[in-house]
Amino acid sequence: MSVKAFENIFTRVTEELAHPNSYKALYHERNGSVPLPSNEVLQQIVELGRSIIFPGYYGRSCINATTLEYRLGVDIEHLYSHLVTQIQAGLAFSGFEEGLAAFAAYNKMTINAEMLRMAEDRAAKFIERLPELRRVLTTDVVAAFNGDPAAKNYGEIISCYPVIKELTVYRFAHELWKLDVPLIPRMLTEMAHSETGIDIHPGATIGEYFTIDHGTGVVIGETCIIGNNVKLYQGVTLGAKSFPLDNDGNPIKGIPRHPILEDDVVVYSNASILGRITIGKGATIGGNVWVTQDVPAGASITQKR
Amino acid sequence: MSVKAFENIFTRVTEELAHPNSYKALYHERNGSVPLPSNEVLQQIVELGRSIIFPGYYGRSCINATTLEYRLGVDIEHLYSHLVTQIQAGLAFSGFEEGLAAFAAYNKMTINAEMLRMAEDRAAKFIERLPELRRVLTTDVVAAFNGDPAAKNYGEIISCYPVIKELTVYRFAHELWKLDVPLIPRMLTEMAHSETGIDIHPGATIGEYFTIDHGTGVVIGETCIIGNNVKLYQGVTLGAKSFPLDNDGNPIKGIPRHPILEDDVVVYSNASILGRITIGKGATIGGNVWVTQDVPAGASITQKR
Amino acid sequence: MSVKAFENIFTRVTEELAHPNSYKALYHERNGSVPLPSNEVLQQIVELGRSIIFPGYYGRSCINATTLEYRLGVDIEHLYSHLVTQIQAGLAFSGFEEGLAAFAAYNKMTINAEMLRMAEDRAAKFIERLPELRRVLTTDVVAAFNGDPAAKNYGEIISCYPVIKELTVYRFAHELWKLDVPLIPRMLTEMAHSETGIDIHPGATIGEYFTIDHGTGVVIGETCIIGNNVKLYQGVTLGAKSFPLDNDGNPIKGIPRHPILEDDVVVYSNASILGRITIGKGATIGGNVWVTQDVPAGASITQKR
Amino acid sequence: MSVKAFENIFTRVTEELAHPNSYKALYHERNGSVPLPSNEVLQQIVELGRSIIFPGYYGRSCINATTLEYRLGVDIEHLYSHLVTQIQAGLAFSGFEEGLAAFAAYNKMTINAEMLRMAEDRAAKFIERLPELRRVLTTDVVAAFNGDPAAKNYGEIISCYPVIKELTVYRFAHELWKLDVPLIPRMLTEMAHSETGIDIHPGATIGEYFTIDHGTGVVIGETCIIGNNVKLYQGVTLGAKSFPLDNDGNPIKGIPRHPILEDDVVVYSNASILGRITIGKGATIGGNVWVTQDVPAGASITQKR
Amino acid sequence: MSVKAFENIFTRVTEELAHPNSYKALYHERNGSVPLPSNEVLQQIVELGRSIIFPGYYGRSCINATTLEYRLGVDIEHLYSHLVTQIQAGLAFSGFEEGLAAFAAYNKMTINAEMLRMAEDRAAKFIERLPELRRVLTTDVVAAFNGDPAAKNYGEIISCYPVIKELTVYRFAHELWKLDVPLIPRMLTEMAHSETGIDIHPGATIGEYFTIDHGTGVVIGETCIIGNNVKLYQGVTLGAKSFPLDNDGNPIKGIPRHPILEDDVVVYSNASILGRITIGKGATIGGNVWVTQDVPAGASITQKR
Amino acid sequence: MSVKAFENIFTRVTEELAHPNSYKALYHERNGSVPLPSNEVLQQIVELGRSIIFPGYYGRSCINATTLEYRLGVDIEHLYSHLVTQIQAGLAFSGFEEGLAAFAAYNKMTINAEMLRMAEDRAAKFIERLPELRRVLTTDVVAAFNGDPAAKNYGEIISCYPVIKELTVYRFAHELWKLDVPLIPRMLTEMAHSETGIDIHPGATIGEYFTIDHGTGVVIGETCIIGNNVKLYQGVTLGAKSFPLDNDGNPIKGIPRHPILEDDVVVYSNASILGRITIGKGATIGGNVWVTQDVPAGASITQKR
Repeated sequence: MSVKAFENIFTRVTEELAHPNSYKALYHERNGSVPLPSNEVLQQIVELGRSIIFPGYYGRSCINATTLEYRLGVDIEHLYSHLVTQIQAGLAFSGFEEGLAAFAAYNKMTINAEMLRMAEDRAAKFIERLPELRRVLTTDVVAAFNGDPAAKNYGEIISCYPVIKELTVYRFAHELWKLDVPLIPRMLTEMAHSETGIDIHPGATIGEYFTIDHGTGVVIGETCIIGNNVKLYQGVTLGAKSFPLDNDGNPIKGIPRHPILEDDVVVYSNASILGRITIGKGATIGGNVWVTQDVPAGASITQKR
Repeated sequence: MSVKAFENIFTRVTEELAHPNSYKALYHERNGSVPLPSNEVLQQIVELGRSIIFPGYYGRSCINATTLEYRLGVDIEHLYSHLVTQIQAGLAFSGFEEGLAAFAAYNKMTINAEMLRMAEDRAAKFIERLPELRRVLTTDVVAAFNGDPAAKNYGEIISCYPVIKELTVYRFAHELWKLDVPLIPRMLTEMAHSETGIDIHPGATIGEYFTIDHGTGVVIGETCIIGNNVKLYQGVTLGAKSFPLDNDGNPIKGIPRHPILEDDVVVYSNASILGRITIGKGATIGGNVWVTQDVPAGASITQKR
Repeated sequence: MSVKAFENIFTRVTEELAHPNSYKALYHERNGSVPLPSNEVLQQIVELGRSIIFPGYYGRSCINATTLEYRLGVDIEHLYSHLVTQIQAGLAFSGFEEGLAAFAAYNKMTINAEMLRMAEDRAAKFIERLPELRRVLTTDVVAAFNGDPAAKNYGEIISCYPVIKELTVYRFAHELWKLDVPLIPRMLTEMAHSETGIDIHPGATIGEYFTIDHGTGVVIGETCIIGNNVKLYQGVTLGAKSFPLDNDGNPIKGIPRHPILEDDVVVYSNASILGRITIGKGATIGGNVWVTQDVPAGASITQKR
Repeated sequence: MSVKAFENIFTRVTEELAHPNSYKALYHERNGSVPLPSNEVLQQIVELGRSIIFPGYYGRSCINATTLEYRLGVDIEHLYSHLVTQIQAGLAFSGFEEGLAAFAAYNKMTINAEMLRMAEDRAAKFIERLPELRRVLTTDVVAAFNGDPAAKNYGEIISCYPVIKELTVYRFAHELWKLDVPLIPRMLTEMAHSETGIDIHPGATIGEYFTIDHGTGVVIGETCIIGNNVKLYQGVTLGAKSFPLDNDGNPIKGIPRHPILEDDVVVYSNASILGRITIGKGATIGGNVWVTQDVPAGASITQKR
Repeated sequence: MSVKAFENIFTRVTEELAHPNSYKALYHERNGSVPLPSNEVLQQIVELGRSIIFPGYYGRSCINATTLEYRLGVDIEHLYSHLVTQIQAGLAFSGFEEGLAAFAAYNKMTINAEMLRMAEDRAAKFIERLPELRRVLTTDVVAAFNGDPAAKNYGEIISCYPVIKELTVYRFAHELWKLDVPLIPRMLTEMAHSETGIDIHPGATIGEYFTIDHGTGVVIGETCIIGNNVKLYQGVTLGAKSFPLDNDGNPIKGIPRHPILEDDVVVYSNASILGRITIGKGATIGGNVWVTQDVPAGASITQKR
Repeated sequence: MSVKAFENIFTRVTEELAHPNSYKALYHERNGSVPLPSNEVLQQIVELGRSIIFPGYYGRSCINATTLEYRLGVDIEHLYSHLVTQIQAGLAFSGFEEGLAAFAAYNKMTINAEMLRMAEDRAAKFIERLPELRRVLTTDVVAAFNGDPAAKNYGEIISCYPVIKELTVYRFAHELWKLDVPLIPRMLTEMAHSETGIDIHPGATIGEYFTIDHGTGVVIGETCIIGNNVKLYQGVTLGAKSFPLDNDGNPIKGIPRHPILEDDVVVYSNASILGRITIGKGATIGGNVWVTQDVPAGASITQKR
């Protein structure tokens, strides 16, 4: 192919791709000068969060009793300032996507100022929840240790286990979800999904002492409600069976459509539990089964062969 | 262990590992001075591709109507030049592995020049396909949105959903596969496999409006043919049941051995569909089932319990 | 929220998180001045290992017959020195977690010196095993090639296949496990688990010519014993069915509780094989089945529908 | 020293350094949430500027006639957006240091908005000057080439010569200085001073076809005025001789106190020219001399020995 | 040149350079396993030092009254731990170079432990000096501001002026010099020399309110003694005139051989003051002069023309 | 300024800068697809060179007698391959600038192949000179040590002294200069000029046991010839006095115009020696003098006052 021939292709393709007809559904223009949320900064938020929750395990510092408070102070300050920029970015994105309805009466500068104020407010509320988040994550570490004979000590679980990496992110994301932060919670859980193979929607509600063994392939849907002391194995789906469409044929958003697991439920590998059904307290779901109806408390379901 | 004792081990092990008897099956010597394809450059190719297809979502730029064309021009130029080096590297690798049969008549410099010419030609043809690739990926975004009640808008899908990350890479890799580019297509899909848990062979043929929910554990084999409007859930295998061996006991390459899914098929989580069978138009395959025979159009298969 | 209000939250949260009541189960203080094992250095260990085993495929060098030995010498020296620091870190961590029982009689400087001596000793023993590790990994490359009609040549398998990435790490980690190195083996296999979706416990025993197709979701437990020529597909679990608790209700560590797979066994996708059962030589386990009892040699188990 | 003894030092020193008495003259608190100008971003501004002025010499792109405009568009957009953040940072810094007099009537959000507007305005005016800046820098390249028998071609001068690196930065900084941008111009020229050893104050006025040979140790003061076709050698000082103090004994700012060099002046190595004197058109100042009085046009001053 | 011919060169040159005859004077073998001091870590020490002395100007943090102490605590802890590793490295280097005389009675592990103890001790003593270092550097900022009519405020001086960059490093290095730390002080001042063009030997003694204008080319020798309120201009040398040789013809180390400048001395650009002479209180040395004899208090020396 | 107004500026400026009239003297288009020499790769060449010449001082490795040869082999291989790409880039640049006269008869691919062959040839010849380069640099280390009473040992000189950093680069660059490598030698010495403040033209000829004390501001011109045992102090210029112009008024290239310094000459700080004059064996030139005529052997020149 001659240089000239390539330049023709180059010029034609560039023009074609720059034409609104080509990009219209796939294009994001910044709202004001606020950029999109950044995967790099969100990754730092995750690392700061792990460093704060599990002092000495994550983060670069040589922590001891004297220096711990200094390190926490600096990490929390960084976490807060990163959260402010990212929540503001999420609000800007959301306003853009949703037609700026919430912002219609404002001019550009006032919008940016208002979004900054909202972001600072929500970030501060998130910071306020850190001690409770650490308390609940402690129960998850205990559950992972008690549930795995191969675990040698809490330290091994905090250092290596995918379930703890996942739950730290999920519990952070769920807190942001409750604060009506757009986009960020979902980006966070997808980052952890990629790292661990566990896909928990930030909208799901999960009790204490929760654990997942191995974890690859686990899916927990947006409207799941999970009690305390629940244990899942790898490949478990807590999904929707079907969902109603609106008059345009689009799925109706926000309807409860995922299972409820009461306290003390165990679900073995590759089981699929689908729809707004209830798995009763203490029930056991065997591996590789397909469950679409309520299971009574204490029952045990296994695959026929 | 004394320093002397370690030095003995060190010297002995180094010599042993440097002996051709040790490394012969596992060793790659560069063909000419052309290095192997680089995972780092392939990662940049993926990022440039995402940045071109979804302007404003990926890439560092603050894009608007005025600057979009400049940004596209620069990204396409970069994509082209990276493709040239990587396709050339793939050709050099392939020549090496396959005994340089195609190149036997040439001397070293002529080979490099010829491979460069071939690489420029195929890279230009790939660039020419970008507008069509964007058009098809738009249908995938629409399918993902329509298939998930938890999705708030196209932007969320483009930013976070593993299926879109995977399909962007798969559709690029499939295009390179059709251009007879060696090794690169497979490296690209394995990179996306690691990121998303979805393993689509670049040789598979997939129609428009295709989506995969959650995705972890999905496998789509080399000779699959998938129609339009197909939806898969996590853990679905579209695999081979068995494969004939040649007289040396090695598998025969290239025989159709994976399923055909016609338009409008849905396959639920963890189902395994194996062999060159056909799942008819509009059929539904339930979760956790094992299917090795044709399924008629419109049928519904579910696990017995 | 006023600046003052946020500063109150900030100060209160920092104090609360710095209080021993909050962090006590989740806190790691360095033993001596030895830091925790580092994921970054472990990643370099993995890359050096791949570069040594598969010369020319990994690593930055332009290797040929003249320069191969120099490159191997430098890589082995780096591998050794990284192993020394990481094994020492693992020993320090382990001593801390386990109450320093083994070190009770020593003062701090002597402990560090003794741990360094132990680390140098074990790292040297690991280096000594490299030629044997390469020999066994060669059989794994052969098995992957013979088991996949889509594979074009050994080079493609070494460059892209997740099973080879995983097995290189697993076989390294298993060697360190046998040398009683704490924590590191588990960190290594979890890194490979995140990369490939395959979770092999470093304690598992696996024969030669082993392969896993696709791999996402595979779990192989700590006390598994796997013979030669075994092949697994994606989503296979070789897990524990249940485990006895001690008087405090904690799982008893170290009891054999995972399956034994004899030579020539094949297990298809998403099958779960649980408990200390034996799958006899040459048996075939179909996809999506749930097996909790011995399977005789040569038998074939498939899902009922 | 015992651990306890060090912890005492650590705690005491930290408290002492955190006490306002210790840090008061040396402390910068952000004005609003605007950070200080960033050396890293300023470095990028310099690199973008060089890439725009000298296309093909700097920057990562493979530029040709077809792609040059795309690359320029992207670089100019980046330059503009970096300038906006840095000018805003400079304004915020300046407001803080100067008691916010200019901003006294505003609340915090309005100040940020107003500073952003001012920054956008000045950055745009700077962008408008780029073609003129390139035109003048072309004359400097010509002067450097004509003044050095060792130079082989313009390309060598653009690639390597410190004078061109310095003048590109100085001419950018001087333009920002004329736009009343605080702090940034000075930071830019100090960065170039560190790189080249040439210290030109951004306030100095310098004509066309200006060159400096070698350059290390050259100093050109804030109120210098330099005509066209002037050439300096290394180590030349164009400085102030003395400066009047105000009633508090502080130097009075902004008084003309540096030399005027008319067209066609040459100053040889290590000469010092001090005070508001005039070196007449075409004069030559020999090396290592100390000049504090007017020199007539065409004269030649040399060191006595 | 044929491949074979190059391989011959390669092999021959490698062997020749690896022969002790070739490298013996230029080779450093690590003492124990302690590496050489690291320019990268020393650079971090400089940055931490600047961040501690000038809070808010350097370092990444968004500092305010609430968070300043946390940030200082973390920075001081980092500074201490980097100093410990680098001082230990300096001691190991020095022991090696000086024949390990001081360590002759020890075995390797005891030496490492003893050097660590010495390093911890000296690093702690350095930390203890930080408040005094900040106090003296405050006087240098004041002197720079009072001495330059072009300076707008302290912030500009702290952000940009080479003299402050240099003096921060020199005053740190001088403190380490007084603590008998080998090699590191010299490495630090050479790093600052490269950055600023100012070369101050860490052994020089310099009073308060010291400043250097512009600075490129200034040299201040090892045994200089400089009073308070002294000001130098660029290119000034405070050097040795000659130095006595020992019987082997080598210079005798440590003899006072550089000038003494009493309080309130000013030295203009490119002046050279050489030998153990005294420049009396309040004297002024004009530019470009060469001074090798005592100058009385209050005198003024200028170049003849 | 409205968004619209800025977009107008942006579009107009981009078009203006993309017009050939604007960029013609300042534009570099790649010759073939060969990029310009890269400062980053040249920096790596410098670091590899320092690592090879001074084993154990530079480079990341923990070198001892066993591993030194491996490390040298790898470093020399890297150095060679970087030199090949950079020399090829220099040849491509030079061909472009000089009108491709040397290449007029070739087509593009043949040119690239021919330039590669030339680059491989010259790089191999450079590698062959490494042992001699190390031998001469050893004499420079000795001279620096003998000339500075402040130096404690060779190690300090190799680690910190700017003269050794500079001379390593100069002696490499001079070797490339003798091999007729275009552009690269000059880029290398300008990199060292920026680092050390010492500006030695790669064309200068310099004998053994050469040293420069402190060094900032030293200039050594293209046609200088310097004997053995010569010592310079900071700020010394060995420059041209004037140079003849050709009929077009451009300086005539390549005429000897810089001084000859015979063996054992010492030049003190800030002296300027200009023109093709000879400073006789053993002469001493005092500081701050201006010399434009021959100085007889053994003479001593000092500044009058």
